[in-house]
Amino acid sequence: MAIITLLTDYGPGTEHVGALHAVLAARCPGVERIDLAHDIPPGDIRFGAVVLARLVPLTPPGVHLAVVDPGVGTARRAIAASTPDGRFVVGPDNGLLGPVCLAMAVEHAVELTSTDHRREPVAPTFNGRDVFAPAAAHLAAGGRPTDLGPTVPVNSIVRPELPHPRVRAGAVEAIVLGVDRFGNLQLLASAQDLAAGGLAADDALTVGRRGSPVSARLVRVYADVPLGEMLVHVDSHGHVAVAVHGASAAQRLGVGPGDWISIAVWR
Amino acid sequence: MAIITLLTDYGPGTEHVGALHAVLAARCPGVERIDLAHDIPPGDIRFGAVVLARLVPLTPPGVHLAVVDPGVGTARRAIAASTPDGRFVVGPDNGLLGPVCLAMAVEHAVELTSTDHRREPVAPTFNGRDVFAPAAAHLAAGGRPTDLGPTVPVNSIVRPELPHPRVRAGAVEAIVLGVDRFGNLQLLASAQDLAAGGLAADDALTVGRRGSPVSARLVRVYADVPLGEMLVHVDSHGHVAVAVHGASAAQRLGVGPGDWISIAVWR
Amino acid sequence: MAIITLLTDYGPGTEHVGALHAVLAARCPGVERIDLAHDIPPGDIRFGAVVLARLVPLTPPGVHLAVVDPGVGTARRAIAASTPDGRFVVGPDNGLLGPVCLAMAVEHAVELTSTDHRREPVAPTFNGRDVFAPAAAHLAAGGRPTDLGPTVPVNSIVRPELPHPRVRAGAVEAIVLGVDRFGNLQLLASAQDLAAGGLAADDALTVGRRGSPVSARLVRVYADVPLGEMLVHVDSHGHVAVAVHGASAAQRLGVGPGDWISIAVWR
Repeated sequence: MAIITLLTDYGPGTEHVGALHAVLAARCPGVERIDLAHDIPPGDIRFGAVVLARLVPLTPPGVHLAVVDPGVGTARRAIAASTPDGRFVVGPDNGLLGPVCLAMAVEHAVELTSTDHRREPVAPTFNGRDVFAPAAAHLAAGGRPTDLGPTVPVNSIVRPELPHPRVRAGAVEAIVLGVDRFGNLQLLASAQDLAAGGLAADDALTVGRRGSPVSARLVRVYADVPLGEMLVHVDSHGHVAVAVHGASAAQRLGVGPGDWISIAVWR
Repeated sequence: MAIITLLTDYGPGTEHVGALHAVLAARCPGVERIDLAHDIPPGDIRFGAVVLARLVPLTPPGVHLAVVDPGVGTARRAIAASTPDGRFVVGPDNGLLGPVCLAMAVEHAVELTSTDHRREPVAPTFNGRDVFAPAAAHLAAGGRPTDLGPTVPVNSIVRPELPHPRVRAGAVEAIVLGVDRFGNLQLLASAQDLAAGGLAADDALTVGRRGSPVSARLVRVYADVPLGEMLVHVDSHGHVAVAVHGASAAQRLGVGPGDWISIAVWR
Repeated sequence: MAIITLLTDYGPGTEHVGALHAVLAARCPGVERIDLAHDIPPGDIRFGAVVLARLVPLTPPGVHLAVVDPGVGTARRAIAASTPDGRFVVGPDNGLLGPVCLAMAVEHAVELTSTDHRREPVAPTFNGRDVFAPAAAHLAAGGRPTDLGPTVPVNSIVRPELPHPRVRAGAVEAIVLGVDRFGNLQLLASAQDLAAGGLAADDALTVGRRGSPVSARLVRVYADVPLGEMLVHVDSHGHVAVAVHGASAAQRLGVGPGDWISIAVWR
């Protein structure tokens, strides 16, 4: 059975998500549809790109439709890319698809320009419904990518800006990539960065924006610190994360996506 | 394969939505279920009705279950209606089904009174689970509508109040139908209304409640104005919409569903 | 076709829910997945347990995966339990599974210790993806529970604390179990408790925390009181519930999960 996965910033349970499902079901009857995430913050291409790249490898091979598209209706390209193991990635070429295309080693890409596989007239503000979903359905139904438009170089696919952490002795400074429902902060930094900064298991730390740090501890799981206390750990995706046991780190620190925070050894 | 679509105001990911899915899967094994929207504002029959009418035509023929039912347990009827192309619409007869029944040209309707296709005893506050989902499952499984209750006249199906815009030279005043996740305001007005008021592409406008207007421009897509600026456009459903590029128009204007706002040429 | 149901506190439409679906679809191709609820308040084991126990009986027999797991990565057990009618319940043994195991009369249980049916290395903070979903997929695909680990006594499955209401003549005091999207308060009390306190249909009542009661009426449905007025009724799950017709009782009373409120005859 054909599979299509969906990732958007449309919001969970919204009619925009419903419209994608409706178009996919109508154009590729019987396709299995898997919702990967719909709560990407509005227009947050960077977070969408990272989430997409880590979820796709968990899924069966299929067509991976992704739409976080603040520039909808502008000159940014609409593309579909294919991988050696028979997957397809479909969405706007604004950085959203860069990491997953890299991780999946895509070997071919087309620009979605053909009017034969669209809902016409295309609404300039809802390409998800009118351009991307029809293209995904076409591929899931066994259609050829080259039906959708001309080939474009794989190395022309846009990559998002993913700022590297700043590491020095006893401290790692990194950007907040995303915040989950529990208020956990996921940072663009890895266990390797912590090691490079000399931060080790059980270290007492300070965490936060410059000038207003909070004490924390470098541990393995939430319950390794008392309720209400802050912790730093390597999360289930390999990212450094900041959490408060039983409460919200985002609220405690007053930070959100795009903010830089510092994790330093307590001296 | 039989298809059932779902639209409610139960909230995304809630147990109420889960209960509908459970009952549908139990009573019509193997049915394909498509969530159209579950974030209709609580009790907002008008918005639910408009969203349902525009999503149903995107889906494959099937059974369209819709529940926005602030009067649950009162004398309002529960109905099922059928269309010439083999679709069924199931839900409370409180205005929610009016527009889709009109758009789909329903030709037959029944009142859901039979106790044979309900979960008994019916909970007075959860007819979705006990009355509407069982009826939808019955129809999706190939059961006859007339098993569910007596025929009622199609023209007796309740229609919601959809206030017409007020158009004069240089201005259109319209009601806010809904607000999406991005804070975009969808108005009960069309491109024809803008034209009737003499508003044209690229016009400089003022938008807002009387007395506190904000400047805007009549354009095609969000990116046609600078980040943070307000725009008026015709959205992907043909409605006049007010948005702020990269921010929330609802917040900027302080308005929500049911408010009237004015769009006027800047003089 | 095999069926897996999902209940979590991961949040609707989040990548965490998407990861579970991805793992299930990859490890048990073609399985039908039913989302029961994903909006359980973060870490609210008690509410998750009650919701799970009332939704499972609505579903077809299958594998019931549930994850509300604030103690993830600690010594709490991971378990799977089977029922006489061929259902399986899978999740953390922290109280979440107690009520459904009791209601379904589970007759066998295992602790999930085998490393053969996990995603290795198991992330200490995302056992849903790495331990529970693979176990659920194994069972849905027809695998034996005993492949997953050693048998544990069914009567050792943890039960959550569910405080009994305090009933006296003319009054019932009960804990708020949960709050739904409409702001309705569901209490840990039943129609029997109301009867034991001598509260009868149409009684004028006071509801609220000690010291700040609001007047209400004991009725059948929301519309039995005027818009904006408070009501007490027995909800669709048999719980005593407090609601405001067309508004939020949680907001009106300023209470939430875990608070005690009193319902008393107006004197």
